[in-house]
Amino acid sequence: MNVANRNASAPAVQWLERYAAVRQQSVALCAPLSVEDYGMQSMSDVSPPKWHLAHTSWFFETFILVPYFKGYLAFNPQYAYLFNSYYQTVGTLFPRAQRGVLSRPTVQEVLEYRKHVDAAMQSLLTGTVHGDLEQRLELGLQHEQQHQELLLTDIKHILGGNPLKPAYRQLPAGSTCATAAVTWLPHTAGVRQIGAQANDFSFDNERPRHRVYLHDFAIASRPVSNGEYLAFIDAGGYSRPELWLSDGWQELQQRHWQAPLYWQRQDNAWHHYTLGGWLPVPAEQPVCHVSYYEADAFARWAGKRLPTEAEWEVAAADVPVRGNFVEAGYLHPQAADAIPSTAQLYGDVWQWTASDYAPYPGYRAPTGALGEYNGKFMCNQRVLRGGSCASPQSHLRASYRNFFYPATRWQFSGLRLAVDI
Amino acid sequence: MNVANRNASAPAVQWLERYAAVRQQSVALCAPLSVEDYGMQSMSDVSPPKWHLAHTSWFFETFILVPYFKGYLAFNPQYAYLFNSYYQTVGTLFPRAQRGVLSRPTVQEVLEYRKHVDAAMQSLLTGTVHGDLEQRLELGLQHEQQHQELLLTDIKHILGGNPLKPAYRQLPAGSTCATAAVTWLPHTAGVRQIGAQANDFSFDNERPRHRVYLHDFAIASRPVSNGEYLAFIDAGGYSRPELWLSDGWQELQQRHWQAPLYWQRQDNAWHHYTLGGWLPVPAEQPVCHVSYYEADAFARWAGKRLPTEAEWEVAAADVPVRGNFVEAGYLHPQAADAIPSTAQLYGDVWQWTASDYAPYPGYRAPTGALGEYNGKFMCNQRVLRGGSCASPQSHLRASYRNFFYPATRWQFSGLRLAVDI
Amino acid sequence: MNVANRNASAPAVQWLERYAAVRQQSVALCAPLSVEDYGMQSMSDVSPPKWHLAHTSWFFETFILVPYFKGYLAFNPQYAYLFNSYYQTVGTLFPRAQRGVLSRPTVQEVLEYRKHVDAAMQSLLTGTVHGDLEQRLELGLQHEQQHQELLLTDIKHILGGNPLKPAYRQLPAGSTCATAAVTWLPHTAGVRQIGAQANDFSFDNERPRHRVYLHDFAIASRPVSNGEYLAFIDAGGYSRPELWLSDGWQELQQRHWQAPLYWQRQDNAWHHYTLGGWLPVPAEQPVCHVSYYEADAFARWAGKRLPTEAEWEVAAADVPVRGNFVEAGYLHPQAADAIPSTAQLYGDVWQWTASDYAPYPGYRAPTGALGEYNGKFMCNQRVLRGGSCASPQSHLRASYRNFFYPATRWQFSGLRLAVDI
Amino acid sequence: MNVANRNASAPAVQWLERYAAVRQQSVALCAPLSVEDYGMQSMSDVSPPKWHLAHTSWFFETFILVPYFKGYLAFNPQYAYLFNSYYQTVGTLFPRAQRGVLSRPTVQEVLEYRKHVDAAMQSLLTGTVHGDLEQRLELGLQHEQQHQELLLTDIKHILGGNPLKPAYRQLPAGSTCATAAVTWLPHTAGVRQIGAQANDFSFDNERPRHRVYLHDFAIASRPVSNGEYLAFIDAGGYSRPELWLSDGWQELQQRHWQAPLYWQRQDNAWHHYTLGGWLPVPAEQPVCHVSYYEADAFARWAGKRLPTEAEWEVAAADVPVRGNFVEAGYLHPQAADAIPSTAQLYGDVWQWTASDYAPYPGYRAPTGALGEYNGKFMCNQRVLRGGSCASPQSHLRASYRNFFYPATRWQFSGLRLAVDI
Repeated sequence: MNVANRNASAPAVQWLERYAAVRQQSVALCAPLSVEDYGMQSMSDVSPPKWHLAHTSWFFETFILVPYFKGYLAFNPQYAYLFNSYYQTVGTLFPRAQRGVLSRPTVQEVLEYRKHVDAAMQSLLTGTVHGDLEQRLELGLQHEQQHQELLLTDIKHILGGNPLKPAYRQLPAGSTCATAAVTWLPHTAGVRQIGAQANDFSFDNERPRHRVYLHDFAIASRPVSNGEYLAFIDAGGYSRPELWLSDGWQELQQRHWQAPLYWQRQDNAWHHYTLGGWLPVPAEQPVCHVSYYEADAFARWAGKRLPTEAEWEVAAADVPVRGNFVEAGYLHPQAADAIPSTAQLYGDVWQWTASDYAPYPGYRAPTGALGEYNGKFMCNQRVLRGGSCASPQSHLRASYRNFFYPATRWQFSGLRLAVDI
Repeated sequence: MNVANRNASAPAVQWLERYAAVRQQSVALCAPLSVEDYGMQSMSDVSPPKWHLAHTSWFFETFILVPYFKGYLAFNPQYAYLFNSYYQTVGTLFPRAQRGVLSRPTVQEVLEYRKHVDAAMQSLLTGTVHGDLEQRLELGLQHEQQHQELLLTDIKHILGGNPLKPAYRQLPAGSTCATAAVTWLPHTAGVRQIGAQANDFSFDNERPRHRVYLHDFAIASRPVSNGEYLAFIDAGGYSRPELWLSDGWQELQQRHWQAPLYWQRQDNAWHHYTLGGWLPVPAEQPVCHVSYYEADAFARWAGKRLPTEAEWEVAAADVPVRGNFVEAGYLHPQAADAIPSTAQLYGDVWQWTASDYAPYPGYRAPTGALGEYNGKFMCNQRVLRGGSCASPQSHLRASYRNFFYPATRWQFSGLRLAVDI
Repeated sequence: MNVANRNASAPAVQWLERYAAVRQQSVALCAPLSVEDYGMQSMSDVSPPKWHLAHTSWFFETFILVPYFKGYLAFNPQYAYLFNSYYQTVGTLFPRAQRGVLSRPTVQEVLEYRKHVDAAMQSLLTGTVHGDLEQRLELGLQHEQQHQELLLTDIKHILGGNPLKPAYRQLPAGSTCATAAVTWLPHTAGVRQIGAQANDFSFDNERPRHRVYLHDFAIASRPVSNGEYLAFIDAGGYSRPELWLSDGWQELQQRHWQAPLYWQRQDNAWHHYTLGGWLPVPAEQPVCHVSYYEADAFARWAGKRLPTEAEWEVAAADVPVRGNFVEAGYLHPQAADAIPSTAQLYGDVWQWTASDYAPYPGYRAPTGALGEYNGKFMCNQRVLRGGSCASPQSHLRASYRNFFYPATRWQFSGLRLAVDI
Repeated sequence: MNVANRNASAPAVQWLERYAAVRQQSVALCAPLSVEDYGMQSMSDVSPPKWHLAHTSWFFETFILVPYFKGYLAFNPQYAYLFNSYYQTVGTLFPRAQRGVLSRPTVQEVLEYRKHVDAAMQSLLTGTVHGDLEQRLELGLQHEQQHQELLLTDIKHILGGNPLKPAYRQLPAGSTCATAAVTWLPHTAGVRQIGAQANDFSFDNERPRHRVYLHDFAIASRPVSNGEYLAFIDAGGYSRPELWLSDGWQELQQRHWQAPLYWQRQDNAWHHYTLGGWLPVPAEQPVCHVSYYEADAFARWAGKRLPTEAEWEVAAADVPVRGNFVEAGYLHPQAADAIPSTAQLYGDVWQWTASDYAPYPGYRAPTGALGEYNGKFMCNQRVLRGGSCASPQSHLRASYRNFFYPATRWQFSGLRLAVDI
């Protein structure tokens, strides 16, 4: 099981409420969509919103209802094939790149599937919740929260690639204050500890908590802004191979990158697609939708570097999880003063770190299918830290490790600089 | 213009009625669909049903309303980009393979677009209809009928590839009589004429009517049946390279063909997906959803050959256009006696011919964008003749040339044999 | 067997001499090469020169020595796998696209293989040569002549793609006379006969001789020249989709065609790679290294069309096979007066015809492996007629059908126009 | 510059001798080849031997002769384009995947190029060698040694993929003693230092020497043997997704891996291609030609893990660089007692580590083109340690970092296990 020992069992009623709230939120996020939007897969990384709604239900069905709820009848036995994401040990998988050609089950049928699962879960949760069940329940809810963020980034990609550039919904205006100059927060060398604290929930990949040796470093007081990134573009950043990793330069050439994803020149000014529609790029907001390769090239151009994930975690360890999350409703990174938070460590944009996504010393993947949750992805990916404007606040913590391939751009991914001192 | 001189102008009221009927039929064909089905593109050859509904409207808008209806306001100027199929000279094209990721415009918006175009067309048609306008109107309606057949074949591919195998709608039971033995209808050598008659409507590719020399030949009295095709499969037809064209053998290996499209073994018997759902393959029905390569390999195995299109047309010249068309409602090829027709020349299945899709002697593509309708496709494709169970009856004639690449299988494509005598 | 009945058996001594001469010529064509050149495969269509030398020997070994020469011992049993080109019924095939990574057998070993085969053949040919053996011998020699032309076009591609642009050998200067204006040679409509004459050697694809109906047409008195083709380029021919077949336009875009193969702008003038090295493009020579798509687009731009293969053959029927062949040593198409010949019908450049490569009425592929020689390629290819500056003169005749895919450019392929009259 | 400060300048005569020896060794390694072998590129990772001989010369020419040897005339100015491997800042690059289609320059010309460069280098080295020049000279020689190992692995791939399976040369018989049981060498937790020592030569990627925190661990006393790896294969290792990283499982499926590279079943026993030819796989030798994914899956199956590079370096720090290197002439990993060495840490097989190839804390790539030597590859690759049977002994040290993509198999790559204690 990739859930750590929680401090104390919550009473069943609290589980019921939390389950209902989390589940309801997924459906609510889809409310602005047309039926047609639910089935789209705009690239192979993206899953149709409908698929997210079904897959998260499949997760509860497969890992909780089937083993723990006696007499449970699957809503439709074929869904086990259609909505298994990547659990090879559970059975065969419908090909990921084909998720967008499944017009059936319809949205209505998927919503009924959700109700079917929810009803069974509610029955189950009226009994005692403890031990394994509790851990799997926690995992199921955390899993659904992960998919809530993916729902938003996938919806953005589906709508943002449409030439009609439809808004997801109207977004509140943010702050337009100028960006404060970066200051550098110093940390001295020594052995530090990172990883999840003993009694909190965490994914398995945040454990075990362990020692690392850090050298002297300083970390920037805020993420890199659009204005700063524009200076990189204007300095020819996308046409100077010496600034790029070799693999990054190849991606840039093959995909004809000239700016972050969703950016285009129009009438001599950069515009970008946001969930609120097509807008000019504001200089004061954190830059977003850049790949690791772009983040790394920017840092090299700036004469700085990206922090390691250990550096980031040490810097964030004592900072409260406050910032621009999904609950704020902006659904876009904001200028620093829009939502006061320490150094914008949490929220706004995920921050690419220099760290390979690797097992922590002593890590062992859980046995069984849930061992596939995190461990098997520990190769070729980079860790991002901090959460974004699309993350649920309750989902985040200092030890949280997000991870994507270095060419990934459709997440709310930005960067924060670090320096040796 | 790829419409020939029609015999006589019809009064405007007849145009109005015909326009309304044809347009209504496209919408009616989509009635059994869920909203989700309208947007799917299950392979790059397939277009979403929604796209067909929009594109056929764009055709009337672009080629009739814009030039002929003074003051016409486009429903949405971006649709010219989204719903242009392949007319390079009209403007840039939205990439064909991406049609399935356009959740917007929604089905509702597309239906409104249709109404907008229909209202303008109705206004236009209350005036006098003659000359160029009449020819373009005829072309627009024939064009829409072509897309009605594509709608059905695309819908079949969208639903048939879904693991849930949903039926499009319930289909009437057909005849289950055994197949009569094939007889061979002889034709003697000589100079013959093929191509559209002077006064009838035809596409430009059916003209000019011209002379060809045919050698003695005989043509089969009916298409090849599933039962006969099963014998080919059982004889190892899909594993004997000597029966196949070189390019066909390569396709077979790359795509792992072992039977016609939509066929699968289940419980030791061949089943196939039909628009009525998942069913056993009946021996007495014409075989369907085979590529040119399969048709050619079958013919070689049988010691026969495919007819040329000239042979087919000479054989069909005096046969009335009767048979199993879309109006019959079967939406699947039927055993010979289900709908009496001469030799099943028309309806049931399109019949692959041995002929390359080439310009007739003296052919010149029309000038302007409508010259792109047929002429630019005259390379690498094969002619099919006769129409299918998904074709509108009024759309067919002896000189009609359908054409697809030789690897194509998602059309209702079967075969009829010929022999030298 | 794809060899027709020859008129009369030649005495064995003549066979011996002819065999020796043809075999020697293949080796002689490679004489200017460095050892390193023999193994290169510059694209998958190209075979290494070494491979040609081995494959032609394999052909004699497989189809003559093994069945007819008692006690023949294969030089190396693995060569049957390495040097089988495409005869599926003979055994498994080494992948074509990998021919260029076989450093072994070495050139020396391949030459020894040739000697081994030649010695056995000479022993065999001292006996009586008749019937089947004679036919296969004829086929083997014709086959080797086909590969001699491929040797030259493949060598050109291997050297021409090298940035050092090494010449194959010094070539003689040709004529630099201006091109005469085209005149149009008329032919009246009627039933004509095409295909190989009864008693001559031909490949199976030239048979049976049969009737065709031709409409009135006229054919150009010479091929299209570089000067004329440059006018097409200068008129924007490569950027006007309305001039191109749909598939051709797609090729042009994917491959970034802007001129014939081997052409590049340098110092404001077009240059091209020839077997004699890097030279300015002379206006008076026939244009060469164009695909069918380019030939077709040029013809459309010129308001003309390509002839069908039947038209070409009727026009060439009584013309002696004279012209600029490999024996002349130019190894490049020449201005009309370099080597007097009627209308340059033979030699200089293969001329793309409008005809699909299809079986003639009544055609049946021979049984056995040699039936794979021609028949299985009768799909998706276009017929070229006439022979080129790289063809052996004795290999050509009016009924000869060469065939390549329409995107092919590395052959000495040009075009001749035709018109309806 | 990616060379660290060397302890003391050597007299010019020593440089001359060393230069001559290293350069001569590259040519000597190619001596067993046929001319045809020199030009082959059997996959895009492989470079033709001829290319290695030219590229290493280009390196001296570009980075030493051009800047330091006044009046130097390039042998051929186009070679700068043909033989630049990946230095974007030096100029445009001939496409890597096309290296195998360059028949020219010939082997002879490349050897003349080498002589031209060597003559100039010898003139230069008769003068004083110090400072920058000395550093670049050292780098050039180390660079050439790297290519000597690549020469052997590329030659193995070129010959090993040939169906004739030619031996590179006859190899000496090794020991056939049974493998000793593994013992586990323990290390206690704490802050350790890794990275190159101040005064020795190293590449830039081995610096700066820095502190790391290591947890308690033990490392195996020898690499994993063929016999142990066969047990993994026999246990279904290649068909159990739960043992594999997600990306590794995908590679396995796409490339149909069933055993290490060069292995095939024959007569019910595993055989493999070695530089000495086609041989049965001996159980007692270290397993070789496995990817990172296979190494990782084996470790997981064995209930162990791969060491990190820091663990490996700490374990190797005080071990003398002795073992089975290229000088021993085996050119294949040997059973433990063939060449006594401590734990076979050095030689035999490169050992995959669990570590991402990343910059060390404080690392800065050198400025200028030589900064491209290592730094830009620090993404998506894994570190290997120890050297192999194809490495020059003088090229290795404890801090040496080799790196390849995790799917790489054509290097002499094996593995050593570690455990937490």
